[in-house]
Amino acid sequence: MSSPYGLHRVVEPAGVLPQQAWRLSTEPGSWPDEVLVDVERLNLDAASYRQLREEHGSPEAVRGAVAGIIEQRGKMHNPVTGSGGMLLGTVREVGPESPLGLKVGDRIATLVSLTLTPLRITDGLADWSGDSEQVPCRGTAVLFGRSIAAVLPPDLPDELSLSVLDVCGAPALTDRVVREAGSGSSVLVLGGGGKSGSLSLAAARGAGAGRLVALVPTEGEADAVRAAGLADEIVVADARNPVAVAEAVGERVDTTIVCVDVPGCEHGAVLATADGGTIVFFSMATSFSAAALGAEGLAADVRMLIGNGYVPGHARFALDLFRETPGVRELFEARERHTAST
Amino acid sequence: MSSPYGLHRVVEPAGVLPQQAWRLSTEPGSWPDEVLVDVERLNLDAASYRQLREEHGSPEAVRGAVAGIIEQRGKMHNPVTGSGGMLLGTVREVGPESPLGLKVGDRIATLVSLTLTPLRITDGLADWSGDSEQVPCRGTAVLFGRSIAAVLPPDLPDELSLSVLDVCGAPALTDRVVREAGSGSSVLVLGGGGKSGSLSLAAARGAGAGRLVALVPTEGEADAVRAAGLADEIVVADARNPVAVAEAVGERVDTTIVCVDVPGCEHGAVLATADGGTIVFFSMATSFSAAALGAEGLAADVRMLIGNGYVPGHARFALDLFRETPGVRELFEARERHTAST
Repeated sequence: MSSPYGLHRVVEPAGVLPQQAWRLSTEPGSWPDEVLVDVERLNLDAASYRQLREEHGSPEAVRGAVAGIIEQRGKMHNPVTGSGGMLLGTVREVGPESPLGLKVGDRIATLVSLTLTPLRITDGLADWSGDSEQVPCRGTAVLFGRSIAAVLPPDLPDELSLSVLDVCGAPALTDRVVREAGSGSSVLVLGGGGKSGSLSLAAARGAGAGRLVALVPTEGEADAVRAAGLADEIVVADARNPVAVAEAVGERVDTTIVCVDVPGCEHGAVLATADGGTIVFFSMATSFSAAALGAEGLAADVRMLIGNGYVPGHARFALDLFRETPGVRELFEARERHTAST
Repeated sequence: MSSPYGLHRVVEPAGVLPQQAWRLSTEPGSWPDEVLVDVERLNLDAASYRQLREEHGSPEAVRGAVAGIIEQRGKMHNPVTGSGGMLLGTVREVGPESPLGLKVGDRIATLVSLTLTPLRITDGLADWSGDSEQVPCRGTAVLFGRSIAAVLPPDLPDELSLSVLDVCGAPALTDRVVREAGSGSSVLVLGGGGKSGSLSLAAARGAGAGRLVALVPTEGEADAVRAAGLADEIVVADARNPVAVAEAVGERVDTTIVCVDVPGCEHGAVLATADGGTIVFFSMATSFSAAALGAEGLAADVRMLIGNGYVPGHARFALDLFRETPGVRELFEARERHTAST
């Protein structure tokens, strides 16, 4: 029997989850709840690509190394960094019991890591020069009953869709938490000028937030968020300085969303949040112990959530929000231009 | 004006929280919302004491080092480990605006770290040999408006009270979360045989849990939890093995409480919890990224809470639960005996 978590695809060691496995089976004959995908492109995780370049040197050697990992492990799971990436492709077969709602011919991006996705390459990565994280290729991948994939919208450039999908958990969970806090409740977004931050501001507004505060690190970012019309108040402070955050925000808020991807923002979030309020940490730089001990040390009765990247319907929710909130698109496109020019 | 967080006691660097400060003011002339305590004993953090012994060697040298740190910093904040400990003492003065509810003469233990508690020693630690984490001493300490202290109950030995107070956040938050999940909801406690685990089981029962499952690592611990009558089902599995946890638990639960103090228990907790359910991580060994990425990779729509050690009324709640649940006391006393004999 197949497992929605893909346990039936684990070759060794037996009994672990696909992400923990050394090797997965990539047989394309699919199980009834699986989806088979014709792969078009891999997006390697940035940390993984950097490590491979440092270890192997030339682009040709990197290409050989990636092909070797996929051949050996049945997935693109860098054994040094532990990371993978995502893939783009087209649905070839949908098992009769697949719960994912995909159709043959859908162009999709996977939202689960390549480290748990069975992958077989058939062209030896011949079309890839090895000098970029973007890997054009031919082959097949398998999605399980609980895998997550998003259909790429025809009205947006692929790159922009991928940027939105990369952070789509944040606006969906923000929507849920702000609705729980109630209409008119106050919301603070730390890092409101970034990708997850700007989408979270838009989600909070849509969920009925009252006072909506964006905290950003520079006047330049403040101007951009102001021009985008995403918040009622825009304040400039270093999110790592708890006292500065508390003074900048003033009256404490009901919900704080942390989207600043640097360490040390836990105590500022605690000080800015009212007793009985909620903090959602989306930043991967969050320290579990700093959050737990910080709230205790400040005698703060706040509910602190680990930002789960999965909420049902998160991809569509984020893409819709992106289309409907012109200011968000402007911020994203400005970031893309900035990244392209540096 | 005084700050409930103690900002007014920070000498250097200016503007940071007391825990981040290098030096605090220990003037005993108290502010209106402060409480002044006659100190009787310090309980040094185990990691801090070990580091001091390794650095300084002889007990006499350790004694000198601790006295020096307190003299220099105005608090017992080990600059290498960053940790402190807690103190026992008797309330000498209560400021007219103190919200802590303490009375002159109360014997108390502080539940906030020594790393943020202004402390002045007046006897040069003359009664301490330097060869144990327990430091008898004379001096004064200051509690702020938001500090947390618990009155030591006269009916329990100090050591047992301190053991309970050390983990008192877990049962209080478990009570709240299980009540939110609703009467008759199912609860799993990973590490149900430990101190925070057994109190969490008792709290879940009191909050109206239906099916109550304890997961423990050994048959011996299973026997102890069974004898204590704390759970409906007791299962034995390695909490670090997600598949083993899921198989041992069977039908997924509404709420999972993680009290296992070893790394790697995040994915088992995710697999054992039903969609829409809640996981509370109390273990300081929890990895933020393992929890966030694990739930995403398993497409698990679970709410994940960072176990905040502070919930209003947590100390009294835990002590009452401890008194009213005979099985819990037996487990604690067995652990104390075990620790004493090894």
